Amino acid sequence: MANKFQETLEMLVREAGAEGCVLVSVDGLPISSVLPPSIDEDRVSAMGAAILSLAERVNTELNKGLLEQVYIKGSKGYVIFTGVKDLAVLGVLAPSNAKLGLLLMEIQRAIKKLEQELG
Amino acid sequence: MANKFQETLEMLVREAGAEGCVLVSVDGLPISSVLPPSIDEDRVSAMGAAILSLAERVNTELNKGLLEQVYIKGSKGYVIFTGVKDLAVLGVLAPSNAKLGLLLMEIQRAIKKLEQELG
Repeated sequence: MANKFQETLEMLVREAGAEGCVLVSVDGLPISSVLPPSIDEDRVSAMGAAILSLAERVNTELNKGLLEQVYIKGSKGYVIFTGVKDLAVLGVLAPSNAKLGLLLMEIQRAIKKLEQELG
Repeated sequence: MANKFQETLEMLVREAGAEGCVLVSVDGLPISSVLPPSIDEDRVSAMGAAILSLAERVNTELNKGLLEQVYIKGSKGYVIFTGVKDLAVLGVLAPSNAKLGLLLMEIQRAIKKLEQELG
């Protein structure tokens, strides 16, 4: 899928040393993605919507305000989902040797761009 | 609830600048906690078990290996859940001005101690 978000996603993958990323609608449908062939776009999208919805409940129950980001760390790397306004979710896959500080910084940069592009 | 885990939890809260933390069984029941009065122990515990169970599925689906940690960032702070072997889950609440690097480092230290205490 190539569209106006593609360039921002490609830059994010390149600059952050990520494996791939996907922009998903709040109801879990893919908008745009840069993913390795082994990863199914629909699957990441659905997973992202599900985990964000539960994390939102956790956040509310524990008085942590509006949900901004969920990061999941596994033995083989990271999956990070970040809200883009109330409009979409950005999911990023990264290897376990990724520099977390750089990754989070580049995600914030991409979010700002995507907010403009979605707005 | 005071027990052998209490001291480790208290040290974590103190050293990491956290608001509180809770040690939870994998089925979502509280084992030990250091929490502010405004936070319900049973609620954090149940939330922790639910989010980890879903995150585990996300991780498996996206080939990220064994689940190690889930962090949820809200506008008013962080909630971080970390597995302690296959035996328990450590949940930590932190304010939004917490230093994330310090927080994650102190959590790893506490996890090592808790693994010994649970083993």
